[in-house]
Amino acid sequence: MKKFINNPENVLPDALRGLAAAHPELRVDLEQKIITRAGKPAAGKVGLVSGGGSGHEPLHGGFVGVGMLDAACPGEVFTSPVPDQILAATVAADNGTGVVHVVKNYTGDVMNFQLAAELAAAEGIVVETVLVDDDVAVQDSTWTAGRRGTGATVFVEKIAGALAEGGAGVAEVAELGRRVNAASRSFAVALTSCTTPAAGRPGFDLPDDEMEIGVGIHGEPGRRREKLASANEVVATALDAILSDHPLAPADRTIVMVNGLGGTPLIELYLLFGEVASTLDGKGITIARSLVGNYVTSLDMAGVSITICQADEQMLTLWDAPVRTPALRW
Amino acid sequence: MKKFINNPENVLPDALRGLAAAHPELRVDLEQKIITRAGKPAAGKVGLVSGGGSGHEPLHGGFVGVGMLDAACPGEVFTSPVPDQILAATVAADNGTGVVHVVKNYTGDVMNFQLAAELAAAEGIVVETVLVDDDVAVQDSTWTAGRRGTGATVFVEKIAGALAEGGAGVAEVAELGRRVNAASRSFAVALTSCTTPAAGRPGFDLPDDEMEIGVGIHGEPGRRREKLASANEVVATALDAILSDHPLAPADRTIVMVNGLGGTPLIELYLLFGEVASTLDGKGITIARSLVGNYVTSLDMAGVSITICQADEQMLTLWDAPVRTPALRW
Repeated sequence: MKKFINNPENVLPDALRGLAAAHPELRVDLEQKIITRAGKPAAGKVGLVSGGGSGHEPLHGGFVGVGMLDAACPGEVFTSPVPDQILAATVAADNGTGVVHVVKNYTGDVMNFQLAAELAAAEGIVVETVLVDDDVAVQDSTWTAGRRGTGATVFVEKIAGALAEGGAGVAEVAELGRRVNAASRSFAVALTSCTTPAAGRPGFDLPDDEMEIGVGIHGEPGRRREKLASANEVVATALDAILSDHPLAPADRTIVMVNGLGGTPLIELYLLFGEVASTLDGKGITIARSLVGNYVTSLDMAGVSITICQADEQMLTLWDAPVRTPALRW
Repeated sequence: MKKFINNPENVLPDALRGLAAAHPELRVDLEQKIITRAGKPAAGKVGLVSGGGSGHEPLHGGFVGVGMLDAACPGEVFTSPVPDQILAATVAADNGTGVVHVVKNYTGDVMNFQLAAELAAAEGIVVETVLVDDDVAVQDSTWTAGRRGTGATVFVEKIAGALAEGGAGVAEVAELGRRVNAASRSFAVALTSCTTPAAGRPGFDLPDDEMEIGVGIHGEPGRRREKLASANEVVATALDAILSDHPLAPADRTIVMVNGLGGTPLIELYLLFGEVASTLDGKGITIARSLVGNYVTSLDMAGVSITICQADEQMLTLWDAPVRTPALRW
């Protein structure tokens, strides 16, 4: 296994120490394994909390800051955070007006966030949950009942985060988060597998001349294996899957993310974005806003995910609102 | 070769089309292959131009924008831009008060930028050159007489860019750029090779249990091969090389970049940064500012470079100045 780590068992605490050293604007609690903003948000602000297994960086810790999350709780690599940890993040994020949990749809995450929400409720904290299930590749998967949650998490956290920053109530923030998820679809293609530090070897085998169509962010199987194809064929496959599930009409406005899964060079992501842009342009669909880079990764996997959100005026306005996090800043 | 491309010969123009689609704040001239700001900078502002082979994204096009570059000229993958292209970037960046070229020390880059500077001078444009040669790994290398230019390029472009934005003259901007380079040192370690689209196979062989100590950003050989080591040993090797070349004393303040070479997960980069921070802290050296992420890459190479700049007050102030580019924003 070729990784820059010390002990496979200490990857998360070691990385959290680095995150703390690099970002004085964050507060990293190494004992509870939660990441919060160093400064206290405005009194009365609805708290936004997300979390899930590590290995998807910058998700979620890299999205803590003004305009996005108040707290993140990273589990071990590809492992859900535990309920007490999620509860600690929830308590840290609560300013007396409730907390919204943004939860990617994986069975362990859903269960543990729900337990934490019940524990928080027992402490008098109102918790609303936004379940993200944007990946159109498969219905049900290795660790999921229903669709997997992937790239739309970034859109939900950015847009609902901006609404929360503006002083909206907990039900309103959650409702918008759910609308963003409902308006978003993702599809991913992998060229290689990924290797967790604990396993020390690739999570699945993928021949040198094949790619996994519809892969999950933990290497879960997609729809099928295919022979390697050109970038424009890959984009056509992904956009077909997305648009047949959520048709878009000419003049619709979108936010589009072309996201690297960790091992894909940025030059390829831009090349892929160019294909997405020309395809959507050909259909008269407007890309109003975009992101190109590594936002929801799968360790060292070479691959790409494409996420499209059909955005209304409110979503676009909130997308443009200021954000100050390690991974997203404007 | 597992890459998201169409035709290996069209990777650069295809990627530039994507860059243009993703960043309306940039103007991408597909014919001349130059990237400039969409808006004209203030009249009289000194222009800042950089460029070099592609495959190091976000370097250089990702650093075009307010507070950094006025223009970038990307060559083909791992290939210098041609003199006419550099001249076009220089002319585009000139506002009548001269242009500073930021040139990484590779023989082809140095020669072509020098030719372009002479052509620009013939057109009446004053050009000053900042040569970046921060990589302490080796003296002379595959494509270099003297030391290679790597991560310090980001520091030079950010700090000199801020000075230029503030209205300084061409000699003053160049002089500061040279001071930043002189105060900076880098060292890189690779776990894997990288594959150019043209070659279609890894540029060098690296056994499964070895790493290249002191690798260059095109896969040039470093100082030696070693058996895989833990992250803290890798950091110790890199910091020994850097600090023995440029000693730092307690109370010295630094800007530190832990940079992924393209195929390294962000969680590992943060883990490495934690090791760098604790080592420097143990020596009483202050990390005043930091960057952790992919800034100067080598296609899909799994590896890391560490760059340290001994920063004075002026450099830190200019580091903090606003910057609005695709890859660096605050």
